[in-house]
Amino acid sequence: MRKKIVGVMGPGKKATKEDLVNAEKLGKLIAENDWVLLTGGKNIGVMEAVNKGAKSNKGMTVGISSSKNNDGLSKYVDIPIITGMGSARNNINVLSSDVIIACGLGPGTLSEIALGIKAGRKIILLNDNQKSKDFLKEVGGDNILIANTPEEVINLVK
Amino acid sequence: MRKKIVGVMGPGKKATKEDLVNAEKLGKLIAENDWVLLTGGKNIGVMEAVNKGAKSNKGMTVGISSSKNNDGLSKYVDIPIITGMGSARNNINVLSSDVIIACGLGPGTLSEIALGIKAGRKIILLNDNQKSKDFLKEVGGDNILIANTPEEVINLVK
Amino acid sequence: MRKKIVGVMGPGKKATKEDLVNAEKLGKLIAENDWVLLTGGKNIGVMEAVNKGAKSNKGMTVGISSSKNNDGLSKYVDIPIITGMGSARNNINVLSSDVIIACGLGPGTLSEIALGIKAGRKIILLNDNQKSKDFLKEVGGDNILIANTPEEVINLVK
Amino acid sequence: MRKKIVGVMGPGKKATKEDLVNAEKLGKLIAENDWVLLTGGKNIGVMEAVNKGAKSNKGMTVGISSSKNNDGLSKYVDIPIITGMGSARNNINVLSSDVIIACGLGPGTLSEIALGIKAGRKIILLNDNQKSKDFLKEVGGDNILIANTPEEVINLVK
Repeated sequence: MRKKIVGVMGPGKKATKEDLVNAEKLGKLIAENDWVLLTGGKNIGVMEAVNKGAKSNKGMTVGISSSKNNDGLSKYVDIPIITGMGSARNNINVLSSDVIIACGLGPGTLSEIALGIKAGRKIILLNDNQKSKDFLKEVGGDNILIANTPEEVINLVK
Repeated sequence: MRKKIVGVMGPGKKATKEDLVNAEKLGKLIAENDWVLLTGGKNIGVMEAVNKGAKSNKGMTVGISSSKNNDGLSKYVDIPIITGMGSARNNINVLSSDVIIACGLGPGTLSEIALGIKAGRKIILLNDNQKSKDFLKEVGGDNILIANTPEEVINLVK
Repeated sequence: MRKKIVGVMGPGKKATKEDLVNAEKLGKLIAENDWVLLTGGKNIGVMEAVNKGAKSNKGMTVGISSSKNNDGLSKYVDIPIITGMGSARNNINVLSSDVIIACGLGPGTLSEIALGIKAGRKIILLNDNQKSKDFLKEVGGDNILIANTPEEVINLVK
Repeated sequence: MRKKIVGVMGPGKKATKEDLVNAEKLGKLIAENDWVLLTGGKNIGVMEAVNKGAKSNKGMTVGISSSKNNDGLSKYVDIPIITGMGSARNNINVLSSDVIIACGLGPGTLSEIALGIKAGRKIILLNDNQKSKDFLKEVGGDNILIANTPEEVINLVK
């Protein structure tokens, strides 16, 4: 029986402090539930924080890198998938995730939310931007779920 | 001197009547300005309408298809680029366009807007959803431009 | 009625003088037949030579670039498609070509020949390496055609 | 310290009996050495056999699927990466592997060998086609290594 793959998407350099705290907590909880964590794999922002959290609980971490080699890869990624495809890899993140968590918001994350809706995935939003939630609910309907804390996110994943 | 490539993105099956009217008009104006039209290439919705408009003015049309063959390709596409990559091709649409016009709104189009912001492209929104404009301005800043008519769009492209 | 798209694949920096002479001649002949030329779009080797040949006869040229921007693009490419995908774009070259000409031989070209066989395309080999022809005939069967001159290639395309 | 990722490429439906025996043995040995196995992930041919072998020794298996969903995925794959990209995913197989083993030969495998040479990977050939070995040595030089048994392959990986 294959383990559930939980994708966590979120900003790199522009992640807020709250995004980072949430991401690290999400990583811990994902590992605690024995799910596989999937991210964009970089050593910055939400990606670094969530991978760090998962590894602190001995979770399994997969990173789908946009780069053509290991440059900029988080040291907390167990299995790096090197695509060399830039942002076109965002669709792989989405298709490979059983469920998607958007922790924070930026253009890259927004593209993954949109691709996730297109691909029929459930996407859980964790951020404090009400405008984004209203708008994305309108675009994504039932595919968009809202959570206010990492714990709520995990309950929704379950 | 290479011609300007103008990408027009928009919904397929879920395009509104207004989207279709706008798209056909945009196609005519793009051809009139001797720009190359680039779309997702399908024979539905905004893609079909804008290509039809461009060809009615003898424009040059390029379609970046998500399919692995010519199935579902608009007959108004002169040069089909067959990617076989599904929605991962949306990033190619964006990178290959000098400027992007979002005519209408749906998940696929939203992903292209987001990827366009990420890639530093100017994106012109043409739709009547105020919520989307407010939100996307917030995410994309100066990369997001707003127009109310096809003619305004073309003036912004110029 | 859509024009035939002829893909010409071949080495960049490692192209031989004969490859370059053949490529330029091929470009002229492709344009003469009013076909669209499709290449990897770079300003080196076979790609540069064949595009130059095509433009000398006012042909239409499409370049599917592996880069994420216009860097390294041949000035003889009319329509650059920017994939940002590295060598993963080789499959797009193949799928988008009605017929493939391999002018010369190198690892990139070999990957395109192999992907072309996989995709069911006819591939015309133009090089003087007998070992390659024997081996590729074995792998590709009827999909592999052999030519000794650019003129023979064009006859096979017809 | 990240585990070594060993990519095993080989034919699907057209795999020979010897390919399948070799693949299963390779899978066992890869798992025995505590390396991660990476394949194209399908439930046929070399992919199925090598994944089965690895799981019989409790190895970790990653499958980079060309499909847009889990259809046709080997049940022996622990971590499916869903690309939806067709054969363009072959370049991801190559970039994500620290070393590549080509077990058997077909068009898809040949494309991966060629992309591997292009990407500077070491590729170990395990097949009984002398023509292919001679030719690929000529194209790939020192990047191409030859083995006659699964055990020899593993010694070369070490």
